[in-house]
Amino acid sequence: MVISEILKKALEKGILSEGDYFDIHYYRISDDMGKYKRGTFISGDTVIFSYPSIMRIMRLREGLKTHFKASPFYIEEKVDGYNVRITKIKDRVVAITRGGFICPFSTDRLSDFADFNKFFAENPGYVIAGEIAGPENPYIEVYPPYIKEDVKFFAFDVFRKGARSPIPPEERYELLSKYEIPGVRQFGKFTSSEYEKVRSVILKLNREGIEGVVIKSVDGRRVVKYTTININISDINADSWLILEMPGNFYTSRIARIGFAMDEFGINPDDDFYKRLGRAFIDGFLKSISKFKKYGRLSYTYRLRFNDDRNLALFLEHMRTVSESIKFRIIRIFRENGKHILEFEKIFLESTSKFSEVLQGGGVYD
Amino acid sequence: MVISEILKKALEKGILSEGDYFDIHYYRISDDMGKYKRGTFISGDTVIFSYPSIMRIMRLREGLKTHFKASPFYIEEKVDGYNVRITKIKDRVVAITRGGFICPFSTDRLSDFADFNKFFAENPGYVIAGEIAGPENPYIEVYPPYIKEDVKFFAFDVFRKGARSPIPPEERYELLSKYEIPGVRQFGKFTSSEYEKVRSVILKLNREGIEGVVIKSVDGRRVVKYTTININISDINADSWLILEMPGNFYTSRIARIGFAMDEFGINPDDDFYKRLGRAFIDGFLKSISKFKKYGRLSYTYRLRFNDDRNLALFLEHMRTVSESIKFRIIRIFRENGKHILEFEKIFLESTSKFSEVLQGGGVYD
Repeated sequence: MVISEILKKALEKGILSEGDYFDIHYYRISDDMGKYKRGTFISGDTVIFSYPSIMRIMRLREGLKTHFKASPFYIEEKVDGYNVRITKIKDRVVAITRGGFICPFSTDRLSDFADFNKFFAENPGYVIAGEIAGPENPYIEVYPPYIKEDVKFFAFDVFRKGARSPIPPEERYELLSKYEIPGVRQFGKFTSSEYEKVRSVILKLNREGIEGVVIKSVDGRRVVKYTTININISDINADSWLILEMPGNFYTSRIARIGFAMDEFGINPDDDFYKRLGRAFIDGFLKSISKFKKYGRLSYTYRLRFNDDRNLALFLEHMRTVSESIKFRIIRIFRENGKHILEFEKIFLESTSKFSEVLQGGGVYD
Repeated sequence: MVISEILKKALEKGILSEGDYFDIHYYRISDDMGKYKRGTFISGDTVIFSYPSIMRIMRLREGLKTHFKASPFYIEEKVDGYNVRITKIKDRVVAITRGGFICPFSTDRLSDFADFNKFFAENPGYVIAGEIAGPENPYIEVYPPYIKEDVKFFAFDVFRKGARSPIPPEERYELLSKYEIPGVRQFGKFTSSEYEKVRSVILKLNREGIEGVVIKSVDGRRVVKYTTININISDINADSWLILEMPGNFYTSRIARIGFAMDEFGINPDDDFYKRLGRAFIDGFLKSISKFKKYGRLSYTYRLRFNDDRNLALFLEHMRTVSESIKFRIIRIFRENGKHILEFEKIFLESTSKFSEVLQGGGVYD
């Protein structure tokens, strides 16, 4: 499809949104439309496809056999952060979120991660996909244990513009290393007959509190993901405070992943495990009740570091428009070590109003 | 609306279903249609309204104040079973399920519970609503701890045909006792200023493993329900084996109920509590995995006692039609102590096929 047709079709379906970032005007597709999925980004004559969904397996041994047969694959770390696609539009290198927004925060910080200007000057026809992770990010509460402050970046895919599949892993490793762009950890090349080795990698990552792995064929076309038991417990724990507004299967799908993994690895639940799982479900929620009783709202506070305060201003604008169910409130803005620091709060309106109703004795029909 | 109009409207909406029970031909409405809700039963010139939804409160003190102000209310046990409406159609006393079916099992057993024939001979214009509970029932796995075998019946409401609100509790107590029809336990008449007394009732029921209470105004028109902490843990435990097909908020809504109650009653979670909650979520699911690996399916077995084997035959017919996602299989039929015993299995096809896919290494996009 030519660009004008994509735009026209998305407009007719009511799934075309617009955005601006400095002199870049762009469109994003906010819901799936044939092969143009939610998050497709369009600006001028450039179309950046949405980052493809990755299939999840819940059994390692059978999953590797089923999806890779006898062919070798690479195992890479699945970093717990948020996904951005990095590319050059006009003369700016920008970071685009999964939803198709140019994120002023992520874009601002690119220069701290690597010399992307050099990369894109020499490789204008590419898109780098990667994870931004760490405690000081605007989107996600959880982060890998080895990042103690701020955020870091880890590339996990390189696409040629217009291609739906990434370049092969080996080619990516070489390209990224040439430009000193940090990539995700790589654990080696295996085949499904080396199950015991793969299992050891997973169990080690489980002990270290790592989210999981992404497993990729040598040509980069077959990709599956697999997450660890401990990260699934951590996810339940991290989000039980919002249990009244999260979709219920966020939690139940994690119970299934945990169960299938314990059975596969022959791990029997012991008292310590039961306690951790029970805590994961209730502690956050009890904390929400006491927070609500104290502050009258349910919110989470964020802290971000910016290089350029124009990006900070654009980020504030961006946050005011992203969700009707979240109220955004600035706590403070100040300078520290050459960076502009923004502290803000997201107030979760749905949970806040449900807590308020219940605590006033309101009833529900369920 | 006259009956022909109700039928016509439901037919046009595609929510009119038919059924037969011996010489009774009946219609049921399978989805809400204005004031005729899902479960409305129609036969000849009789319309039996669906049993009304009851509002749930999650905070006792504020809930009582909000819904009853200074007016007195009765507290009755909420029995953990399934709801039936009992009435006389032609010359038969029948038990109608929440969905509007005449249940051949429930109807068969009415004579074991009380002399309903006498009641309806003298009170033809009435409908009795009550709970059938116990280990040997066809619909629900959980049951009150004080029922050790078979099923029992407990009336909780009496309606005049055509009335949407039940008769006042006092009137019901008198009427049921006159005919020796067993009713739900009654804990007394209170006002919201007697919160401490009500709280003691609830905490005692919590210790006893009772589901909860239904609280009713003296005129029977205001009704709310409240469930105990322990029953919410038991419910999670009883259904975690089916976690891949139950709606996720079955579990999360129970976490919320538990949390709000612990906070209200000042109960802090201790190790024993965490362990119980953790177990509730994972043990059933791990059991499902080993059962699936052993038997290749996920199922639950039921045992029922019938007086009349024609009801057993009608029940078998009924079960073959109720759900597309459940396969019904007879295990055995035999006589014991003057009753016809039916043992059968419900095979849960959705969970069975999901387990099969996952264990073969299949992937999901989530």
